[in-house]
Order: sequence, then structure tokens, then C-alpha cells
Amino acid sequence: MKTAVRKLKNPPSIISAASVCGAKEKDGPLGDYFDIHDSTDTFGKDTWEKSESEMQRLALNCALSKCNMRDSEIDALFAGDLINQCISSSLGLIDFDIPFFGLYGACSTAVEGLILSSSLIGNGTIDAAAVVTSSHNCSSERQFRLPIEYGGQRPPTAQWTVTASAAFILEKCSKPPYITHVMPGRTVDKGITDANNMGAAMAPAAIDTLVRYFSETGKRPEDFDGIFTGDLGYEGFSIVTELMKNQGYDIESVYSDCGLLIYNRQAQDMHAGGSGCGCSASVFASYLLDRMKKRELNDILLVGTGALMNQMSVQQGQSIPGVAHLIRVQNSYDKEGGK
Amino acid sequence: MKTAVRKLKNPPSIISAASVCGAKEKDGPLGDYFDIHDSTDTFGKDTWEKSESEMQRLALNCALSKCNMRDSEIDALFAGDLINQCISSSLGLIDFDIPFFGLYGACSTAVEGLILSSSLIGNGTIDAAAVVTSSHNCSSERQFRLPIEYGGQRPPTAQWTVTASAAFILEKCSKPPYITHVMPGRTVDKGITDANNMGAAMAPAAIDTLVRYFSETGKRPEDFDGIFTGDLGYEGFSIVTELMKNQGYDIESVYSDCGLLIYNRQAQDMHAGGSGCGCSASVFASYLLDRMKKRELNDILLVGTGALMNQMSVQQGQSIPGVAHLIRVQNSYDKEGGK
Repeated sequence: MKTAVRKLKNPPSIISAASVCGAKEKDGPLGDYFDIHDSTDTFGKDTWEKSESEMQRLALNCALSKCNMRDSEIDALFAGDLINQCISSSLGLIDFDIPFFGLYGACSTAVEGLILSSSLIGNGTIDAAAVVTSSHNCSSERQFRLPIEYGGQRPPTAQWTVTASAAFILEKCSKPPYITHVMPGRTVDKGITDANNMGAAMAPAAIDTLVRYFSETGKRPEDFDGIFTGDLGYEGFSIVTELMKNQGYDIESVYSDCGLLIYNRQAQDMHAGGSGCGCSASVFASYLLDRMKKRELNDILLVGTGALMNQMSVQQGQSIPGVAHLIRVQNSYDKEGGK
Repeated sequence: MKTAVRKLKNPPSIISAASVCGAKEKDGPLGDYFDIHDSTDTFGKDTWEKSESEMQRLALNCALSKCNMRDSEIDALFAGDLINQCISSSLGLIDFDIPFFGLYGACSTAVEGLILSSSLIGNGTIDAAAVVTSSHNCSSERQFRLPIEYGGQRPPTAQWTVTASAAFILEKCSKPPYITHVMPGRTVDKGITDANNMGAAMAPAAIDTLVRYFSETGKRPEDFDGIFTGDLGYEGFSIVTELMKNQGYDIESVYSDCGLLIYNRQAQDMHAGGSGCGCSASVFASYLLDRMKKRELNDILLVGTGALMNQMSVQQGQSIPGVAHLIRVQNSYDKEGGK
């Protein structure tokens, strides 16, 4: 196995980010951090699929206007989502005249897009890029499980697909925060077959990526202000905390998960926490980047986690591999520093 | 709109390619060029979805063995397919310990992966990459339309989803052929809503990309030994030929489409021709690269074309946008040359 961590020569800046969310996310502890919300979750559209597309359109529009840019100034657009054939992205972003790279990384899509865009900017291939992703509870539930109108019961390990979208604009190194290091994850299959326990399916991939990151760089968990996984929820969070300790890395004091941050476990009963492409994307675009701007956080690891399955693969008894992509985001960086 | 064509500073080499196909593709005019085939189309598996995954595994194994490399020597794997949530790729390639980037570009996935991997190698981010994609007639038909066992009728404009997979290994500039220029396409929506006429849905995107390529570079169609679109079939091929002429570019003498090359229109009644992620990927990996090796072709444009829809978006009356990604592949290149 070759080294997977890449230090970007000219770390690109995240010059703008925007988030769009639904009612439950607005009611949650991070509600005030999101830019746009719709308490009906419809965003004025007549199907849930169109609502999700509209969220992406709003997110990218908002991110572009925040940094005063037009689509004609962006070299590449990286986008993906959970809906079959990623139509939320391709139909939602059709108005933007930007070369389009469709991604599928399940819930790791935002970080996958940030790795690819920052690598292309960091090494001079392009100057500016946008990354967009989304998930919608109602379009996801009816595609993967049952229409929510059926009122099906969910086991305690089940996570709640977040209704949210986020967009990021990256540009050549100009101002903090910077994406300084990237590390794409490999797919990890530990034989989990329970589609209602995605946290357990994704946790082994997060551990694989984190352990390899620490081992390749010589860094320790305490070197960071925070380590955030994408959407492991309570199940996955406990597994990662416990098994990382077994591997010699006590991450507990700096570790959190976007699927835990987005809802209030006491006031909102979301079972095992949030999940979906929009989960880590919207938490990073709003709450985490805001804390970086305020210098409460200056050096973090964001680990996007994805469960690689579809309805039929689960029905056919196939296990659910996970993948975890990592980026290091810093307010300042050492031009000559090591790995 | 910024320029979209990128000249790669250090054009990567396609050092290996492998193709896997089913019975109809083996019986077609390019049958002898494919590396591996199974006349039952099952590849020893008990579901069509598993058969498609197995094709990807075989393709990557074969491509690696052709260039005498192991997965541990590859920095990044780019893969995607047509099946919901791209499981053919994530489950088919689970054995390979390579950082994994999931893509969704519909039938343009192979070229999308070649653009991303060659850009990252060309700018020095990574040294070696693999690109894999596939489509299987039986898994696609039952997902997008009806199980083939139902024997549903197809209109003359319908294309036949190709049962094929291909894998490519790219490395730093060493020997021909080289990927010298890349140009990601933007999504183009001309209001086509007929899911049985994908050629018409994708043709406007191919025209958009080709016209912008010629206009940005000052090149003319006759400067190339061949221009190959992915899977427009007879419908899309005629539209592109005709409308390019209206735009001032007569491409007829150098233009062909992988969806036309793969089947024999007289002997095999495949209606409008082949389509699917595996179509352009397998034709390029076998027939086109073979002709480049023999120096019958030395400078070509490959334009991967994709139709961005799912079953539900068509049912909801949404139109089908297309996307077309372009690469220029050359046996030699001018280090100091222009665009």
C-alpha cells in the first residue's frame, strides 16, 4: 500500500460555503447556523425529488453570492447525492454553466468532492471549483425503505436522513481556512448486512482511514482542535471511540460526529442520529466553518463516511462496505512543514 | 465561461487496458478485440447485479496483470456504473486495496474517470491510477425498464445496453498513448423526455463539447485521425453529424460512435445501437487502443456521453439532460505546443 495522505503544495481556500435545511434541522441545536430553510421541507416543489434538487440550486446560488462570484468564473463543479443516478445534482444544478463532474460517494460525497477539487486547484490544474451535495429525508426514505407517509417503525440503531444541502466554493490559496492535506479512503467491508445500522457499516472505514492517517503522518489526535466524522451516529461514534483506543489512539476528547451535532437527542427523538450526504456537508458548511472563522477551531480533520449499498444489494444478502475520506482544514499552514 | 480545455503538463500514459464482455458483444464485429467473455452473460454469479460486479473485478485484475502491477502500486481508483448507488463498482472492486473515488457520469463515466485521473497524475498529485466501469444489459434493463425475461417490445430509437466492463491503468508519462488534453463537459438540457431515445438526449451535449473544443483550440475535425462519441447510436450520430455541419464543422469523414462500432446492424438487430457505461469504455479499451498501438490511429478525440435521468425523474415528466466529457489521446505530443 502506497501512502495515501497528500499534502497540497498550494492549499486552496474555502472562500465561501452555504447551507440549506428543512424543519427538523432548523429546530436542532445548529438551526441558527444554516443560511436558508423551509419549514415545509418542500421548497415550493410538488415532489420530494424536486424539493431536493431545489435545495442544491439554492445552496450553490447562495454560496456564489456570498463570495460575489458567477458560475462563469468556476472551472469545475463536483456534485452528487443519494438518489438513484444522482438526479438531485444533475437536475438541480442544470442552470449553472459549469463543467460537471458527477460523484457517488454515498454520505462521503462532500469530502470526496473537496478532495478532488482541492487537489486540482492545489496543483494548478484549475483555479476555482464548487462542491455541492444534498440529502432529503422524504426522497431517501421512500427510495431506500418506505414512503414516510406509511409511518413505518424504525429500530433504535436507525439514523435519520438529514434534509439539507451544502455548497462550497474553493479557490487558489488566498485566505483561511485552507484545505492543506487530503486522504481518500479505501472501501472496507466487515460483513455488516443490517441496512438499519449504517453506523456500524461505516465505522470500520473511518477507523481504517484515521489509523492510516496518524500512522503515515506521525500525528496524534491531540494535535487537532477537533476530529469530526460524517454521519456515524451514536452506534458508529461509540464503535470508533472504542476501537481507536484499542489501536492506541485516544480520540475521545477531540472527537465528535456531525450526525450527533445536528439534532438534540433529548428534545428531538431521531434514534441513532443524523445521516445522509447533507449531514456532514451542512454541519461543516455552517457550524464548523463558523467556529473556524471565530478561531475557536484552527486545525481540524473532517472524515466523510459513506455506506456503499442499494436496496437490491441488501435484499440479495450482500454486505455493506464503508468508505471514509479525510481532509485536514487549517487556519494557517506551514509552507515548509513535513507531511 | 472560462476555457474548459486543459493541456496536461506531463501527459500520463495509458499503460494498460482490459475489456470484459458478454455474448452479443463477443458475436459483434469487435468480438476478437475483447480480453475476456462469458457466453452466458452470468460470469458464474446467481444474480445479474453480481455478474456485473464480477465483470469489473475481472477487468481490473486483467488490466493490472497486463502491466505487471499490483493494487498496492495504484494511488487511486475511479469507478462508477449505472446501477443504483453504483454498487457494481463498490461491491465488485471491494477486494482491491486502493483509495476509492466513486463516480456517477452515466455512460460518460469512463471518460470522466480518465479526465480526473490523468489530471491528478499530470499535475503530480499521484503517480498511478485505475479507472473502471461497466454496464450489463440484464441488470440495467430490469432497473430502468423491465426484466428482460418479460420480453417487452422496444421502439426503433431504443439502444441496447452493452454487457461489458473495461479497466484502464494510467501512469506518469512513459510511453504512448498519452492523454494530452482533457475537457469536462457541462450539462445540457434540450427538453428531451423520451427515455427510449437517449441518443437524442445526449447529442446536444456532445455538440456543445465538440464545438467548444474546436473553438477554444482552433483545431478542425480534419486535424484528427478519428473522433469517437460514446454511445449516441444511430439517432444521436445522425443528429451530431448534421448539427455540427450547421455549426461549420464537417466531421463526417473522421466521426464514428462506439455504440455503432460494437454491433453489426445487419446481422444483429440491436435497434439504434449500443449504450451503457461499458460501451465506450470497452470499445476504447480494446479496438481503439489496439488501432493506436498499430499506429492506424495516432491522434483521436474520445467524447464520453451520458444521459442524466432515473426512472422516477422520467415518470415525473422531467427532461433528460446530457453531459459529454472529452479527452484527446495521442501517440506523440508536442511538449511546447499550443493549446
